[in-house]
Amino acid sequence: MRPTITAFASSPDRGRGLARDMRVRWALEEVSQAYDVRLLTFAEMKEPAHRALSPFGQIPTYEDGGLTLFESGAIVLHIAERHAGLLPDDPDARARVIAWMFAAVSTVDPPIMERSLAFLLEREKPWYDERITGLDARVRAQLDEFSAALGEAEWLEGAFSAADLLMVHVLRRLASSGMLNDYPVIAAYIGRAEARPAFQRAFAAQLAVFGASKSANGHDRR
Amino acid sequence: MRPTITAFASSPDRGRGLARDMRVRWALEEVSQAYDVRLLTFAEMKEPAHRALSPFGQIPTYEDGGLTLFESGAIVLHIAERHAGLLPDDPDARARVIAWMFAAVSTVDPPIMERSLAFLLEREKPWYDERITGLDARVRAQLDEFSAALGEAEWLEGAFSAADLLMVHVLRRLASSGMLNDYPVIAAYIGRAEARPAFQRAFAAQLAVFGASKSANGHDRR
Repeated sequence: MRPTITAFASSPDRGRGLARDMRVRWALEEVSQAYDVRLLTFAEMKEPAHRALSPFGQIPTYEDGGLTLFESGAIVLHIAERHAGLLPDDPDARARVIAWMFAAVSTVDPPIMERSLAFLLEREKPWYDERITGLDARVRAQLDEFSAALGEAEWLEGAFSAADLLMVHVLRRLASSGMLNDYPVIAAYIGRAEARPAFQRAFAAQLAVFGASKSANGHDRR
Repeated sequence: MRPTITAFASSPDRGRGLARDMRVRWALEEVSQAYDVRLLTFAEMKEPAHRALSPFGQIPTYEDGGLTLFESGAIVLHIAERHAGLLPDDPDARARVIAWMFAAVSTVDPPIMERSLAFLLEREKPWYDERITGLDARVRAQLDEFSAALGEAEWLEGAFSAADLLMVHVLRRLASSGMLNDYPVIAAYIGRAEARPAFQRAFAAQLAVFGASKSANGHDRR
């Protein structure tokens, strides 16, 4: 059975692999599972047909036979549970990987997304400088904590796992901020993950969609 | 084996059961698992001894034999996997419950927490009215979507599950906002969950800690 995922027809990240379909593509590449992609415009994401699959009108979704899932964290966990390579066999190590997966999407991601949203929506507001200073401090506090937790380890829990996949994807959103220059431990961790062939295949696949959307639009929006 | 969790010695919610130890207490009550609680001050949460258990210096943690977990979503999932009653047996239904668990903590929670943080930290700022208007709109958009998704169902996926537990806990933070008056479907859903004996035992247990902390402080801070 070949699963189908959904992704942006024209990603707002312009091919940088920051949209959340990248997490699912990467997981599927790590376990060598071929997949199909259905592309959606923003308008289509909010229509009833997509909301029946994804209650909050988001990408990605994952359809496999009679099963439909939403939430990239849950989809990555589902893939990791059904294929070897992304979760340890030892039950305690497996539970710790899942703890890091939740940490990635519910503790580390929100302030990083909030910072991106503020840049997008509040950049022209008179309060922006004060806002972004506070948001940067929140993100940096977590980077300090994460850097200390990772320490000299190659990956979060033994071998590369679904925890590293989600955490690296979350942290990659900071690439353009310059902040990671102050966190060599984290920058090296992201670099190790990006060097994985599965990451590179997934990245190329999402970039190809962006390239095609540019051609379809008849202009390069960079 | 009797697990030990951590919780605030003096919760900033003043006994309303909004802190995240409530999620774990409730899950343990649902599966009739006795537990011990170790209380931490804010200063203790940031010390190395606690960070060794919880890299981001948060409560709750969960210790059971040689296993230590952090992240309330992961702890609730761990409890649900090891006891009957919080996850369906059918594999597809189980995967959908996990999708809703991730939705609760990584999609629904962040804008609600952001709104609470803004109230706490930006209430005196000149931009607060404009900020809170935008934050309310984000929260209401998700409440519209969640209300439509829940519809006339009693619970998210068949019987009460770990998904309802996390989702209700996230939504309860809106109780004091007055917003839920506009969402009778959601208010009734929260009410059904709060009526569960396991919820009431967990609520009483965390309230008792707040009562004790008031006595220890020698005054009523309400």
